[in-house]
Amino acid sequence: MAGDLTDDTWQDLYDSIERVLPVRDTSTQRQELARLAQVYRHLDDGGRAGFLRRAAAHLGVDEDVARRAAEALLEDPSDPAAQVALRRALTPRFSDLLHLLTGLDGGVKLLVDLRADLRHLARGELPLVEAELDGHLATVFDVGLLELERITWGSPARLLEKLILYEAVHEMDGWEDLRDRLDADRRCFAFLHPAMPDEPVVFVEIALVAGPPTSLAELLDREAPTCDAEDADTAVFYSITSCQRGLAGIHLGTELIKTVVRELQRELPHLERFVTLSPIPTLRTAALDLDEATRAELDDRSWLDGDDSGVRDEVLAATARYLSTRVDGRVPDPVANFHLSNGALVDAVHWRANTEDYGLARSWGVMASYRYDPPAIAANAATYAAGGEVAVSEDVRALRGI
Amino acid sequence: MAGDLTDDTWQDLYDSIERVLPVRDTSTQRQELARLAQVYRHLDDGGRAGFLRRAAAHLGVDEDVARRAAEALLEDPSDPAAQVALRRALTPRFSDLLHLLTGLDGGVKLLVDLRADLRHLARGELPLVEAELDGHLATVFDVGLLELERITWGSPARLLEKLILYEAVHEMDGWEDLRDRLDADRRCFAFLHPAMPDEPVVFVEIALVAGPPTSLAELLDREAPTCDAEDADTAVFYSITSCQRGLAGIHLGTELIKTVVRELQRELPHLERFVTLSPIPTLRTAALDLDEATRAELDDRSWLDGDDSGVRDEVLAATARYLSTRVDGRVPDPVANFHLSNGALVDAVHWRANTEDYGLARSWGVMASYRYDPPAIAANAATYAAGGEVAVSEDVRALRGI
Amino acid sequence: MAGDLTDDTWQDLYDSIERVLPVRDTSTQRQELARLAQVYRHLDDGGRAGFLRRAAAHLGVDEDVARRAAEALLEDPSDPAAQVALRRALTPRFSDLLHLLTGLDGGVKLLVDLRADLRHLARGELPLVEAELDGHLATVFDVGLLELERITWGSPARLLEKLILYEAVHEMDGWEDLRDRLDADRRCFAFLHPAMPDEPVVFVEIALVAGPPTSLAELLDREAPTCDAEDADTAVFYSITSCQRGLAGIHLGTELIKTVVRELQRELPHLERFVTLSPIPTLRTAALDLDEATRAELDDRSWLDGDDSGVRDEVLAATARYLSTRVDGRVPDPVANFHLSNGALVDAVHWRANTEDYGLARSWGVMASYRYDPPAIAANAATYAAGGEVAVSEDVRALRGI
Amino acid sequence: MAGDLTDDTWQDLYDSIERVLPVRDTSTQRQELARLAQVYRHLDDGGRAGFLRRAAAHLGVDEDVARRAAEALLEDPSDPAAQVALRRALTPRFSDLLHLLTGLDGGVKLLVDLRADLRHLARGELPLVEAELDGHLATVFDVGLLELERITWGSPARLLEKLILYEAVHEMDGWEDLRDRLDADRRCFAFLHPAMPDEPVVFVEIALVAGPPTSLAELLDREAPTCDAEDADTAVFYSITSCQRGLAGIHLGTELIKTVVRELQRELPHLERFVTLSPIPTLRTAALDLDEATRAELDDRSWLDGDDSGVRDEVLAATARYLSTRVDGRVPDPVANFHLSNGALVDAVHWRANTEDYGLARSWGVMASYRYDPPAIAANAATYAAGGEVAVSEDVRALRGI
Repeated sequence: MAGDLTDDTWQDLYDSIERVLPVRDTSTQRQELARLAQVYRHLDDGGRAGFLRRAAAHLGVDEDVARRAAEALLEDPSDPAAQVALRRALTPRFSDLLHLLTGLDGGVKLLVDLRADLRHLARGELPLVEAELDGHLATVFDVGLLELERITWGSPARLLEKLILYEAVHEMDGWEDLRDRLDADRRCFAFLHPAMPDEPVVFVEIALVAGPPTSLAELLDREAPTCDAEDADTAVFYSITSCQRGLAGIHLGTELIKTVVRELQRELPHLERFVTLSPIPTLRTAALDLDEATRAELDDRSWLDGDDSGVRDEVLAATARYLSTRVDGRVPDPVANFHLSNGALVDAVHWRANTEDYGLARSWGVMASYRYDPPAIAANAATYAAGGEVAVSEDVRALRGI
Repeated sequence: MAGDLTDDTWQDLYDSIERVLPVRDTSTQRQELARLAQVYRHLDDGGRAGFLRRAAAHLGVDEDVARRAAEALLEDPSDPAAQVALRRALTPRFSDLLHLLTGLDGGVKLLVDLRADLRHLARGELPLVEAELDGHLATVFDVGLLELERITWGSPARLLEKLILYEAVHEMDGWEDLRDRLDADRRCFAFLHPAMPDEPVVFVEIALVAGPPTSLAELLDREAPTCDAEDADTAVFYSITSCQRGLAGIHLGTELIKTVVRELQRELPHLERFVTLSPIPTLRTAALDLDEATRAELDDRSWLDGDDSGVRDEVLAATARYLSTRVDGRVPDPVANFHLSNGALVDAVHWRANTEDYGLARSWGVMASYRYDPPAIAANAATYAAGGEVAVSEDVRALRGI
Repeated sequence: MAGDLTDDTWQDLYDSIERVLPVRDTSTQRQELARLAQVYRHLDDGGRAGFLRRAAAHLGVDEDVARRAAEALLEDPSDPAAQVALRRALTPRFSDLLHLLTGLDGGVKLLVDLRADLRHLARGELPLVEAELDGHLATVFDVGLLELERITWGSPARLLEKLILYEAVHEMDGWEDLRDRLDADRRCFAFLHPAMPDEPVVFVEIALVAGPPTSLAELLDREAPTCDAEDADTAVFYSITSCQRGLAGIHLGTELIKTVVRELQRELPHLERFVTLSPIPTLRTAALDLDEATRAELDDRSWLDGDDSGVRDEVLAATARYLSTRVDGRVPDPVANFHLSNGALVDAVHWRANTEDYGLARSWGVMASYRYDPPAIAANAATYAAGGEVAVSEDVRALRGI
Repeated sequence: MAGDLTDDTWQDLYDSIERVLPVRDTSTQRQELARLAQVYRHLDDGGRAGFLRRAAAHLGVDEDVARRAAEALLEDPSDPAAQVALRRALTPRFSDLLHLLTGLDGGVKLLVDLRADLRHLARGELPLVEAELDGHLATVFDVGLLELERITWGSPARLLEKLILYEAVHEMDGWEDLRDRLDADRRCFAFLHPAMPDEPVVFVEIALVAGPPTSLAELLDREAPTCDAEDADTAVFYSITSCQRGLAGIHLGTELIKTVVRELQRELPHLERFVTLSPIPTLRTAALDLDEATRAELDDRSWLDGDDSGVRDEVLAATARYLSTRVDGRVPDPVANFHLSNGALVDAVHWRANTEDYGLARSWGVMASYRYDPPAIAANAATYAAGGEVAVSEDVRALRGI
């Protein structure tokens, strides 16, 4: 089968690797590596998993060398030379191969995809390779090596089509929809990596509005008139998308939000508020303090067309409590936990904020706003990390107490 | 004293590091790190060496942890979890600090300078930190993350002034001299790093000429008419400069030469020859097979003004032999060894090629050309690495035989 | 009515013009002009025609001044001062207004659209204004002030959407279609004007193929595999579009083709042929030497599904004669005349080359190729202009003779 | 003689022009024009003047045609066709040649230099050619076709060397001096023309300072510490240079100042004052109301080293009166007249502001500040143009009254 890893293919790849590793001439290396990359790209999931396992087995640590180095260390654990030697002995040859890929044309993207494969096709099976690749990619994607780019309708089509492809939070309906999201009263920023120029790493979409937002529909309404960015006092971060599965766990979203807040402060000094309009993906399945009748009514959705006053207040209060109460040290909702860890506070909860089907299914249409208040971010983050009180706005505090 | 590391300063820096390491909020981190970087930059050599030693001592490996991890490994050297744990135990906290610096504004340059300090102020004393930083910078400066830039008189002055500053092989006499070296019949290429935009990493200077070069003077003659690049058949690499002491041993020069050869082939398909015009820094102090009288005559320099036929042929033959004969596995001259390792061959030796004082002092004015023949580079490099015959041109072979 | 030019609106605009003309402070000027431009943009066709007529009438030549200047000239027609004075007297104040618009944000685009309005809404009525604007725009759009830009999938979306909008020859079906036309084996070049950055002036689409093209379908087939540009020997110019109605008669298409031929020669030196694949819009309505039966059969389209040998040869021969025979000094087909004037030759005629409905309706599916042979272009153009023999290829010469 | 215009050379050039004018193929045209441009560039002043005169004579207006067109106009001065025909008859063929040059590589620069030659080598002799070229260049250099560029130390060296070359107000002493003028607390902006990319058209140098400036020395002091642009409240325009003699009379300096004021307001919203520090080139030769003794003391320069209180107040008062009093409708000093026409006001006069030799020689070291107050610019300019009161600050008003 085309995508399968036959023994012959493996042997061919392995021979290639053994040829490539000792070579010093990079032109030769690159030709072999390019061929190897191409073969790997054409393998199916099973074939890739097989390749990763075999490569890890054949290009692993030399156990004899590692054992002797460990024994040497135990003789004098403070001897730096012994420490260095042991570290080196614990570096699998597979890592050397991965490092070589970095310099290949398209190599950084390949490494990112390899990490995704490692995590999805061989989860937990190859910890040493995974640990090494984690460290390597953490360096390659260090925020100091990324470029913040403002995305506009004047950006390359090659890049914009990736935004349409990747947008995960609120799907885009083609080029017209994208253009609306890049209007004069919108902002979109991405981190790009110089060795992966047409692939956004993570991007964030922002609406500039007058007054805080209360629903998603008003932000995504394609018929809404464009507001003048100079009149806006609020920047609403309504979507943040990590584009590369293979970079999961490398926290670039946090950096992007903070960098963009600084950037917007510089461009539009009259902005007063930096808030998100965020989903609460766990709300409906959470153990909220709501009685059964309320739950039933909410699930029933009949309140959508009629009078919702019976449930509205109760649900908002329960949501406010849910988002600001720790369970085992952290607030349970992952989106809330993300923003609170970053130093935001719970600013507001919104009723009928997302009445799309997926919004009702996840959280009965309720959304939350988290607020990034630049002077308070550091202290908030420290308090949240230290297990202190969860930061909330006056409104949320009041709501919670009902 | 201003540049000294007092105990108070150290304590202050150390407190700062201990504050910074556990923090997750990068804005806070960056403020502390920026302050730390500034203090370090103002220390004198002694102060820096002191800081590096103290930091290595206080932020080293936890020996108890390392010992226990080594014992665990010895119980089952094939256990990946034990391998991972031991590797982690052998990562000094100082490395975590260095990694954090990467994202700082100017942080990559700081890391490069820190490595220079480690190698010059505390040579060999802190092997674990040095090994870690070597690996980190090898990744950060992987050729896949560098940008090849053609340097012209239209390049930013900010960058060009660095070329004047760094040019090590044939010193530049200010802006006018630089402009001549960027004429229409010259090429200059550099590797730049995106996080160090105004600092060339390594650059190479090339003259496009008709026919092979025979002396440096004809290349550096500022009065010489500009030749038409379209008429040239030969590209002479007459100067290659590594700009960052802190990147010594990270072989970017090799990559630059090969990349530039490809680039020139694309731009000027009629080029037939890619050769260097290189110094032979060790020639005069080497154990050449020259008799004493010849040596004396050479040192005397009287041949400069008169008839040199007495010594010319003998010296060129001895040079040809010297550049193509291994001693302990490699040719002794470092420049020759560099180019031969890269896959070049010894193409020619030139009499009266550099009659500047420093040229006479090092090699009685003799220079060498190494030739990069694209289709032969890989095989040459492999043969040289394997200890095979040193590649030479027909001319040099004949000369050697005299 | 909103788009109408009421007397009040006219008076308001006219007052504004009278305020603006004598002012020297450009900030003030620009505010007034921007308002004026906005009002004009919102007028309907009738309103614009009315504005142009009134403005020409009120801001025309001062006839007394002109008369006196003419009299002065007649006294001494060789007096340069009198010549200058008379020229000045014949410059309508409306021209001064138009010149002022050039510096306005979006002013160059406004001038272009004004010229389109003059030619379409008040054709021939205002010759002095038209002549002045023609001269002004000929200077503003002098080829020396235009920028040749290669259009790729990495170009700004803002620019690419204009290509989809303007493509007149072979309509594009949205973004996916555009992307195919920007594949690696395609080229697209446009002239842009720096003061109209998101508006192509004229653009040309090119396919790189091996061997001459014979039909449009093979070029526009979206399923066709991408060929390697390095393997192509032929560049097919299959579409050229002038985007600005208001620049009709300013011959930028000719310049674009010649500039692009030079550009492609530089990028891809192995290209051997530069040919068009062009419609023959007048073929079916022309007085061809075809008998009635053939015409009937062609119009009937039954040959499309069956044996076409009965008509094929006869039609191609008649086409070859039609394209290379002058009537009143020029060949009658405007596309043929355009390329022959530029210095191309009639290279081939193609059967079943465009079997789309519009292709059959205009020319029974026949298309022509004109060839730009760089060394022959100047001589061809001169010969064609001088009324000499129409340049044709050997094939076309043979075909013609049947 | 090499630079002379011999009859043979003229005949050769003239033949070339006659060949070029009727041709439609621009490639051919361009080759001839390039040759013509090269010959012209190598002529000396006399040769150029000769060429201009002969070309004007041979490529002038056809007097018969002009006479007949003038007679036709007189029959009906309101006939637009007659107007158009007469205008056309009054366009010398030399103008057609000049228009053709625009599209030549380097053609725009050539036109600029031709205008300089016309004005300096054949002043007033060829009014029709001069008028036509004035109009043509006014269009080509319309501010809407220029690009405002911020000049920094990161600008291309090719451009920066032109600044060193052209700086006319306060000469630069090479690259180091230039770098100081591009420090973080400085700004430099230029208008560039896209067809003349390495040639600034006009540039302005600005210092950002806290509090109004009082002397040139403090601005040009290369040892002065760099101030933080964020702390500055005043932008001092201390030098404005028109780089192209051939653009004299095309008022781009005014546009540049106003554009830059807007640009600085956007970048640094806390700036409160936009003032110049300007020479008063006519002060010492003006008919000031100073008594002979004061004049003698000023010229003697002994006050430089001692007590200057005897003359200081008297001179400053006389200067204030001089700069704000019209003679024949305008203030006599050209620099004052320039800024007042632009809408600035006389803000201050400074004692000991430029004690360089040339400063003492022209104005006993006195300088003036003109202030651009954005909301008042339009009204000031209008008032000045209308002959109203000259705008001055409170300080200057008070000073004047002494």
